Amino acid sequence: MSYFFSRLIISTNFETQVASLNITDYLATKASLIDEAMDTLIPSAGDFPKNLNKAVRHSLFAGGKRLRPVLTLASAEAVGGDSSLAINTAVALECIHTYSLIHDDLPAMDDDDLRRGRPTCHKAYGEATAILAGDSLLTIAFELIANSKNISSEKIVQIIKEVSKGAGGVGMIGGQILDIESEGTEVEFAFLEQIHSYKTGALIVASIRSGAIIGGANEAELQALSSYGRKVGLAFQIADDILNVESTAEVLGKAVGSDEEREKATYPSLVGLKESKELAAELLEGALEALTSFDEKALPLRLIAEYAVARKK
Amino acid sequence: MSYFFSRLIISTNFETQVASLNITDYLATKASLIDEAMDTLIPSAGDFPKNLNKAVRHSLFAGGKRLRPVLTLASAEAVGGDSSLAINTAVALECIHTYSLIHDDLPAMDDDDLRRGRPTCHKAYGEATAILAGDSLLTIAFELIANSKNISSEKIVQIIKEVSKGAGGVGMIGGQILDIESEGTEVEFAFLEQIHSYKTGALIVASIRSGAIIGGANEAELQALSSYGRKVGLAFQIADDILNVESTAEVLGKAVGSDEEREKATYPSLVGLKESKELAAELLEGALEALTSFDEKALPLRLIAEYAVARKK
Repeated sequence: MSYFFSRLIISTNFETQVASLNITDYLATKASLIDEAMDTLIPSAGDFPKNLNKAVRHSLFAGGKRLRPVLTLASAEAVGGDSSLAINTAVALECIHTYSLIHDDLPAMDDDDLRRGRPTCHKAYGEATAILAGDSLLTIAFELIANSKNISSEKIVQIIKEVSKGAGGVGMIGGQILDIESEGTEVEFAFLEQIHSYKTGALIVASIRSGAIIGGANEAELQALSSYGRKVGLAFQIADDILNVESTAEVLGKAVGSDEEREKATYPSLVGLKESKELAAELLEGALEALTSFDEKALPLRLIAEYAVARKK
Repeated sequence: MSYFFSRLIISTNFETQVASLNITDYLATKASLIDEAMDTLIPSAGDFPKNLNKAVRHSLFAGGKRLRPVLTLASAEAVGGDSSLAINTAVALECIHTYSLIHDDLPAMDDDDLRRGRPTCHKAYGEATAILAGDSLLTIAFELIANSKNISSEKIVQIIKEVSKGAGGVGMIGGQILDIESEGTEVEFAFLEQIHSYKTGALIVASIRSGAIIGGANEAELQALSSYGRKVGLAFQIADDILNVESTAEVLGKAVGSDEEREKATYPSLVGLKESKELAAELLEGALEALTSFDEKALPLRLIAEYAVARKK
């Protein structure tokens, strides 16, 4: 079945798509591969203090979607590379994502008790340990990348630059601070987009670019994938905002309606649900367009983009 | 003046030493070099959110001793290398040290209001921003190392391994968690030594080894410097414990007597002040012994070891 045919079916009937690649299976397969690698790569005993380790694992193995590491693997494949070389980097990106959730959930930040259907890290292990577990995951991330096997040191250095930028002050951390500072204030649409592109988009772009670099992408491919990543990242965040309004705590495994309660600027609060959904659909279209020069090896990336918007949790 | 002569004078009269190298001047010169580099390397404007940047700089430019980065530069020089190549790594290590102070000072951890004579980061900017400022500094650290100029990618990767290990779960973070968990409990001497070697020693050893790697150290030199680092790190921590008992808040720029208040296991609380001082002196002797095969280029390292024990704040 050609890509275009699959694409058509997927677009018209995502839930029951009969595409050549089943995205649910693909995500599940990659996620279990990542979970296995995490289990091996993240210290579980030895000299690592026991409680720190428990807290780290409590949050890491809570059944996340593994979107970022899957994007890393899928991007390596999209440019014809061997995604098994990207496993350390993929796990590193999940570590960074998880650390950000642990810190965001802290009482001083979003003060959330529930995450992925389980008590948040500080609820289970106390605040001090949660802060340190987050710090530890961020540190492990760079250690893991540095310890990548069968990748040149040049590429490793390049990936560390990508990841540190995406996770830092002009990336994820910067977005979080803008987000916190904007609570309870009037936010312009452009500023909301900046918050989201920093907070979620930057690390997603880094995940994609890192995988592509490992896979041997050329500059044009990297540019196209970055564009894809920015759009998917934003679409993903808009979908998150929508779910926070429309879904239930049972389905999401975390509190809903919390954005409104905190007077957080979100797409639904700024432009309404309908326009938010249209915007997400437009971004999806743009993300797919960015991949037009890629062959069928980019099918997983295309399907992930659809999933980012259509997902129910 | 020969090294041995300098050494003799320094040992007998540290405060008024007339050594060929004045350690106070050396530390001041290197510290100002590091401060200048920090000012250039740490984002101060542009896309970096303003409040995050302010909080980061509040803590970074609070007049710290810059011990870790100075050790990095001095270690590069000790093995005959060009310490200017180590400047990014040196700044990175100060960023990591500073992030650890910001997080340690948080209400959930040590709950300190004063640090280096100024309000702690969370006192000045609020808890959420302080957590993120710490996260940001840790992230910047790895970005800075990756952006080192005129060092091979192989060496950069090696340094990231050293630094992430020293800062992580079997290093600084691990030590912090053991320290917190041991508060109010009976601690054996060996365990206290483990806490300290994790909490302070590991990052000091990483600082030294990173500088030495950049300077082109061979394996024997790295081994000797690691031994020096472990001893200096422990001596430095014992000196800290002693100052927490004997000094004043005015001199230290932070609370004194706080260890006792928190029933923290320290060297003075475990073996008394007198034995603690003897232990520090022994460690100093051992640190100097570890450097016997080094020539006069290691004089700064020797003097820093003396300073670590003899300092008044």
